[in-house]
Amino acid sequence: MRQAGRCLPEYRAVRRRVDFVSLCRTPELAAQVTLQPVDRLGVDAAILFSDILVPAESLGLEVRFEPGPVLDRPVRSAADIDRLRLGDPREQVPFVYETLRILSRELAGRVPLIGFAGSPFTLSAYLVEGRGSRLFEQIKCLLFGDPAAAHRLLEKVAGVTEEYLLAQVEAGAQAVQLFDTWAGLLGPQEYREFGLRYVRRIFDRLRDRGVPLIYFVLDAAHLLDEIRGCGADVVGVDWRLDLAEASYRLGNRFVMQGNLDPTVLLAPPAQIERRAEAILARSGALPGHVFNLGHGVLPDTPVEHVEALVRFVRQYATS
Amino acid sequence: MRQAGRCLPEYRAVRRRVDFVSLCRTPELAAQVTLQPVDRLGVDAAILFSDILVPAESLGLEVRFEPGPVLDRPVRSAADIDRLRLGDPREQVPFVYETLRILSRELAGRVPLIGFAGSPFTLSAYLVEGRGSRLFEQIKCLLFGDPAAAHRLLEKVAGVTEEYLLAQVEAGAQAVQLFDTWAGLLGPQEYREFGLRYVRRIFDRLRDRGVPLIYFVLDAAHLLDEIRGCGADVVGVDWRLDLAEASYRLGNRFVMQGNLDPTVLLAPPAQIERRAEAILARSGALPGHVFNLGHGVLPDTPVEHVEALVRFVRQYATS
Repeated sequence: MRQAGRCLPEYRAVRRRVDFVSLCRTPELAAQVTLQPVDRLGVDAAILFSDILVPAESLGLEVRFEPGPVLDRPVRSAADIDRLRLGDPREQVPFVYETLRILSRELAGRVPLIGFAGSPFTLSAYLVEGRGSRLFEQIKCLLFGDPAAAHRLLEKVAGVTEEYLLAQVEAGAQAVQLFDTWAGLLGPQEYREFGLRYVRRIFDRLRDRGVPLIYFVLDAAHLLDEIRGCGADVVGVDWRLDLAEASYRLGNRFVMQGNLDPTVLLAPPAQIERRAEAILARSGALPGHVFNLGHGVLPDTPVEHVEALVRFVRQYATS
Repeated sequence: MRQAGRCLPEYRAVRRRVDFVSLCRTPELAAQVTLQPVDRLGVDAAILFSDILVPAESLGLEVRFEPGPVLDRPVRSAADIDRLRLGDPREQVPFVYETLRILSRELAGRVPLIGFAGSPFTLSAYLVEGRGSRLFEQIKCLLFGDPAAAHRLLEKVAGVTEEYLLAQVEAGAQAVQLFDTWAGLLGPQEYREFGLRYVRRIFDRLRDRGVPLIYFVLDAAHLLDEIRGCGADVVGVDWRLDLAEASYRLGNRFVMQGNLDPTVLLAPPAQIERRAEAILARSGALPGHVFNLGHGVLPDTPVEHVEALVRFVRQYATS
């Protein structure tokens, strides 16, 4: 559960002292908040504390957070795209790798360490829109209006993302996850052309590094036929899908990750357990299952509810 | 295309003189802006100018627009739900029916007149959240935390919606459309329990009125098995789905409505025609097809692009 720490008082205590960007850029602190959910909640993996906009810096772009990401100069024209430089993330965002090295040492194998990035389409959607959006009209304008320029952008973003993740593995990440938060806004044809092929390229490049490759797509029900060809080991889906049905439609070839609705964690623990059990009871039919939420933890989630969920899932797994 | 008028200069001219709520509540003006897209764009149906929050007034609730709907006192507790009264929309929102009567006279059969309402789940999502939201956590809290109270709310909302639509037919609506904008946030199990059954109830009640019943669901790919049982004549889906595949998964029993991505209308006309043609070329395989956008017209859409689309679709249909 990426962002599981958001609901923890110890995370909020850190955030009272330091803003989000400084937190991402200060390895000791980023490592500290990465470990908080592991220590407090007992989840069985640590996931790098960072933001999917971080690699934008390797393209020469500036991002602010207010608190969502904002680019004062979004990438709109073909000229904007051609101006993007292809930097080496090891040089532009060294703090990410230092955070991972600290975590590697401190975890010492206690739980696996997961690195991550946004998918090329999802990162590009932010770069073109300049901020979060419900429909991301601007990136679609680019895809529909100037597909060649869109491909040049996606090529560059994929190139940087590839290096960004390879360097994460070199720095100690033991699995990598690609978050595709906005691919679900595309129809199947656009997803094949502008989404999937860049995801596939990244996973192909990472394949021989020997780490599990995880692909999470929000709102993916209409893209399952395409996602079959993504090249990951694990596919994560949101709460909208029945995991067994999703697995079937994916050809039963992936370990499945998910997929409790994060809003269930706002309900009383008895309801949480009932709904977690409904997912766990069917996981025997999957090629493999990583229990998770179907999307990030909501900031207002009571910590005790998350603790109750983790306890319940652990008990269920060992019973 | 509901809201097609939003992009018209003549609509904006009216809005400079009168705010959105007054426009909805003034039959002569509401009728005038309902007719604008018919006259200017040549679309082949008129759809009532109104808002899906209007029937909330029949439940005793107050809604402001800023510009999205806001309830200063949202429906949160079981007590709030039990306090909702079940009024007669004919008395509380007579302006809706007066608008339809004016339109009936003025159209005189030139194009069919379509009435509409939000689905009980979608309207309830606004009533409980109090405003638009990305995830509508509050209604989900209610569904997950107190399903019995949620059903009492949905019962009341469905009851009012039923009357609201019956009275629209009495006032001259020649087809009715139920908009389910937020059902796609539910998984199949929750949709069956809290969404579909109230939709079905409304369509069953309207069945013998002899008007076509249209059900539009946004983001419906994971709900198609359920939607088969909705009881409508026409199912509208968004741009995420291939119409022929959606129809197949719906048992090829519905006229299909849709589904051009509204952001395509921001691209150059050649691109618009190419993508409209891709939809039209496959419509022969459907039990019937109402060409439409996959969602509302975006406010920044150039009028000439919408005109070009309507012209292209008409030419295609007669060629």
